[in-house]
Amino acid sequence: MQDHATIIRTAHLMADAARAAILPWFRHAELNADNKRPADFDPVTQADRDAEQAMRAVLARHRPQDAILGEEFGATEGTSGLTWILDPIDGTRAFLCGAASWGVLIGLSDGRDVIYGLIDQPYTGERFEGGLGRARLTRGNDDRPLAVRATTDLAAATLMTTFPEIGTPAEAQAFGRVAGRVRLTRYGLDCYAYGLLALGQVDLVIEAGLQSYDIAGPMAVVRAAGGIVTDWQGGPAHQGGQVIAAATPALHRAALDLLNG
Amino acid sequence: MQDHATIIRTAHLMADAARAAILPWFRHAELNADNKRPADFDPVTQADRDAEQAMRAVLARHRPQDAILGEEFGATEGTSGLTWILDPIDGTRAFLCGAASWGVLIGLSDGRDVIYGLIDQPYTGERFEGGLGRARLTRGNDDRPLAVRATTDLAAATLMTTFPEIGTPAEAQAFGRVAGRVRLTRYGLDCYAYGLLALGQVDLVIEAGLQSYDIAGPMAVVRAAGGIVTDWQGGPAHQGGQVIAAATPALHRAALDLLNG
Repeated sequence: MQDHATIIRTAHLMADAARAAILPWFRHAELNADNKRPADFDPVTQADRDAEQAMRAVLARHRPQDAILGEEFGATEGTSGLTWILDPIDGTRAFLCGAASWGVLIGLSDGRDVIYGLIDQPYTGERFEGGLGRARLTRGNDDRPLAVRATTDLAAATLMTTFPEIGTPAEAQAFGRVAGRVRLTRYGLDCYAYGLLALGQVDLVIEAGLQSYDIAGPMAVVRAAGGIVTDWQGGPAHQGGQVIAAATPALHRAALDLLNG
Repeated sequence: MQDHATIIRTAHLMADAARAAILPWFRHAELNADNKRPADFDPVTQADRDAEQAMRAVLARHRPQDAILGEEFGATEGTSGLTWILDPIDGTRAFLCGAASWGVLIGLSDGRDVIYGLIDQPYTGERFEGGLGRARLTRGNDDRPLAVRATTDLAAATLMTTFPEIGTPAEAQAFGRVAGRVRLTRYGLDCYAYGLLALGQVDLVIEAGLQSYDIAGPMAVVRAAGGIVTDWQGGPAHQGGQVIAAATPALHRAALDLLNG
């Protein structure tokens, strides 16, 4: 039995620390994008590294017994059976464009599944939180419940993904089969798309080529809001790869059929 | 000689009035999207109509001598030689998804050219302003100058557009020639992309199928920040259609060559 109150307080302290580390860099003229994979431009910035270090410092102080898996600094072992899964800036490309669709992702796994997560957008001040009995969006003093909407028909659904050139050619073709059937497809929102799904603003998010730290936080938020998150075969999504998040079981099933059609 | 102080004060009052009219509808569960053109889903909402009426009420009170061209309620004649060009919500699709890349667009034409404009994002509180000696972004008490960055090489440039399926097939192909040469292409930001260009965060915005009210405000903002806005032939852009906005003359020339290649 873990102490939920301490876990939740620690997660918010981590998100606060990441905000403070990142915001001075957002839209800063001297931000330099180093290039981790020159072939397809996956920039990592000083802001990513500063933010992950700030979150790790919070954990070292408040929950040194927990393990950590971070995008920038890898794995740190723990003894509690819990692992914090951190993506200090999901959507680095959006960050480098000055667009506020990037987010700080925090997920917590108990070794079997993700049980809690945050999507934090420091510039807009929005924090989506899900799991351990919580499902809410806070922004300053504004606090509202998260709940997916009841869309069951693909023809009435809004679909989001980050890149139109999603994944491999076969993955792009599968995605296109779903995009061809929905009312509206929108691009470019990174992790923020999962927040909008949890908030009942969109109905489907479909992505490919994700890492575990890209999806741990978002999947906790979407599921706490009543949504479904799996891989494209309907199996567990917490390892990343091909991911689909849906507002309702009917939409999830219809989209899976098309992805695998 | 027009009274610049009155013009600028009126524009901000209009943007304030539009904010107040729109924000209660943003992410509201009962927002209904009527369908102006069923064939390709161009929703117009109560929020659009309320916001344009609110802006027209400000003009009726403070500058009844000016003409108006609004997306929702058409043309109103004036006697001053000045015309306000209004798009109450540019990016209605983003609005309906709960994403804050839509904006209130206000442009002012003297009959020959657009001389002043605003891009206002009510949810983030950002207001981009350009013309009549001004070029700035305000957000609450934060006030910073707008200035494009100095990128001259396409290979180092970031390109934005709203839809990957931009315009006609020929237009999409032309766009693809530029997208194939830049460092990074991002989608889905509507009018906000012009604000990011003026803020020195991105280098190129290329769109097709625009209306005059889609570009009047943004073009004033981009030009005041030192950028260039033309059609794809290098001619005037204020009528809409095919529009390119570039940070520097070198980038503008290189992109035009590819668009017309």
